Amino acid sequence: MAQKKNVTFNDIAEYTHFSKTTISRYFNNPDSLTLENQAIISDALVKLNYKENKVARILANGKTEFIGIIIPSLYLHYFSEILDQILSTYETFGYKFLVFVGNEKKEIEKQYIQELLAYKIEGLIVLSHTLSSKSLAALNIPIVSIEREDEYICSVNTDNYMGGVQAAGLLASHDCDVLIHINSPTPENLPTYGRIKGFQDICEKQHLNHQIIFRDLKVNYESIQTQLSGVIDELEQNYTGQKKGIFISNDTHANIFLNLLFRKYNMFPEDYLIVGFDNSPISREAIVPISTVGQQIDKIAFEAVNLLVEQMNERKKRRPVPLEKPIHKIIPPVLMRRETTER
Amino acid sequence: MAQKKNVTFNDIAEYTHFSKTTISRYFNNPDSLTLENQAIISDALVKLNYKENKVARILANGKTEFIGIIIPSLYLHYFSEILDQILSTYETFGYKFLVFVGNEKKEIEKQYIQELLAYKIEGLIVLSHTLSSKSLAALNIPIVSIEREDEYICSVNTDNYMGGVQAAGLLASHDCDVLIHINSPTPENLPTYGRIKGFQDICEKQHLNHQIIFRDLKVNYESIQTQLSGVIDELEQNYTGQKKGIFISNDTHANIFLNLLFRKYNMFPEDYLIVGFDNSPISREAIVPISTVGQQIDKIAFEAVNLLVEQMNERKKRRPVPLEKPIHKIIPPVLMRRETTER
Repeated sequence: MAQKKNVTFNDIAEYTHFSKTTISRYFNNPDSLTLENQAIISDALVKLNYKENKVARILANGKTEFIGIIIPSLYLHYFSEILDQILSTYETFGYKFLVFVGNEKKEIEKQYIQELLAYKIEGLIVLSHTLSSKSLAALNIPIVSIEREDEYICSVNTDNYMGGVQAAGLLASHDCDVLIHINSPTPENLPTYGRIKGFQDICEKQHLNHQIIFRDLKVNYESIQTQLSGVIDELEQNYTGQKKGIFISNDTHANIFLNLLFRKYNMFPEDYLIVGFDNSPISREAIVPISTVGQQIDKIAFEAVNLLVEQMNERKKRRPVPLEKPIHKIIPPVLMRRETTER
Repeated sequence: MAQKKNVTFNDIAEYTHFSKTTISRYFNNPDSLTLENQAIISDALVKLNYKENKVARILANGKTEFIGIIIPSLYLHYFSEILDQILSTYETFGYKFLVFVGNEKKEIEKQYIQELLAYKIEGLIVLSHTLSSKSLAALNIPIVSIEREDEYICSVNTDNYMGGVQAAGLLASHDCDVLIHINSPTPENLPTYGRIKGFQDICEKQHLNHQIIFRDLKVNYESIQTQLSGVIDELEQNYTGQKKGIFISNDTHANIFLNLLFRKYNMFPEDYLIVGFDNSPISREAIVPISTVGQQIDKIAFEAVNLLVEQMNERKKRRPVPLEKPIHKIIPPVLMRRETTER
């Protein structure tokens, strides 16, 4: 039986001689009907060629199956890969994702979140830094953050401290005369501060000659190139002829540093070792494959959605028990040894 | 006046002494009320601290303000940049985007699209190749595709033919002895086939010595590296001592090709010129900045959303006029000259 117009609960009630309330119960609480009556309604839906209207269901039971994602931008491969992996959990969890790119525009981000709330999203994954975890927690919906300040909200992060330790350990094992860490100035309440702290702690504990160099590497390519070029001049002045083990904030920066050295000497000079962070494609596709502290992005994404779904499911219970305090999950990094340290 | 429970149409009707129908008309067709009555209701909303429930509005007027995006993956920077730019149109158009990453899983993609339809999305932007434009057109909702087969649906694409012409023209202007185009085998009904055709046409027209080399470059990094290494061996055998102008399918491949040459000779050899495609970050951040045919991704994204919104707005008219045939918009590419051709 082909239908041109949408089949309504009225049509189904008329066809089955059940009340509209019974039809509604079939969709929202089927176990309250006998199996026999469930079968009669289910047959009727096929006969009437009923197409589910999810919007109507949302109104009935409040479950939209929508999750919002707020991401700063997709320029860095780290962000696009995390987004790719989060979206891919659709197959496992069935949730649909409304994605917003913030570009650090705080007011538009706020407006977007208000819209998401009006659409009754069930939860939010936040990677942008514009809003404090305190103001996010006040939204009173399940939230999980990744690699940002997370005092008042749940989060999933790489064990950045362990990453710093791994990088320093690898460079130390190659008998470098000095260990150098290059990074942007980083507030201590950000997860990525762990990279600096882990590197510093192990150097101090093992009495390794080391230096931490802060430069603003959060701007455009040309500016980063100029900054790192200056760092190389400084290193060659201060550590002439010494074996320099360089641990640098991320793979994009490590690649720029490597290319500057390579262009200067037409080779990768023997007194340098380099370790990046992330295991982005660029680390493998560089002129010399770059050793790196790899983030397990697939695991981070899965755990983030999983932690969010747990909170969302709790809210659907008759007597939901709110979290006593935010849960912070930590995913270990995986060290990838490549040519910039092994030759 | 603070409210704990959600304010309903009933509450507003009671407060204003209007009927529920009048309140509903205020939200869905305000011009049917006098300005005076609009003001009374609008004041009441503030006093009652009314929070809009978009889901209820959708049910009332059928407008979800949702657009679906189907993208193959976010691994290539081209895709993540296009997605970034599409999402950024929120500021201009106000539409929210439900994003799906296909990973070439046809059945899951079909299931997702069915879900989107159940959620009454207003339109769809498709970048994946899994479903034919004929089957997409049969969904009977506004659709715009980007860089895929588009016979039966609207599309926005780079002028790939012009890109092939520009690349060949640039290489010819440097008096190369032979012009080489390296690409994956590409069906003629895909927009990217234009790159091959444009290159070939200008070479034939200007009687330039040229060769088109097809290799499967759609797999993983190691395999692409092996394929391109083989191409270099072949070129050095066939064109010893000749000046070789290389136009290669995209910037990621151009970078791999460049690195292979650089590792072989510890420099970028003088008998090679290279032009890539896309103007991805890697083209600028390579060991030698790579000349490339740049896609205007911001314009492509804007025009795609714009073309979709036009169709969506048409459907909201009392008597919508369907498109007689699909519209195909073409965005010109911009040639970027860098060190791999200018030295």
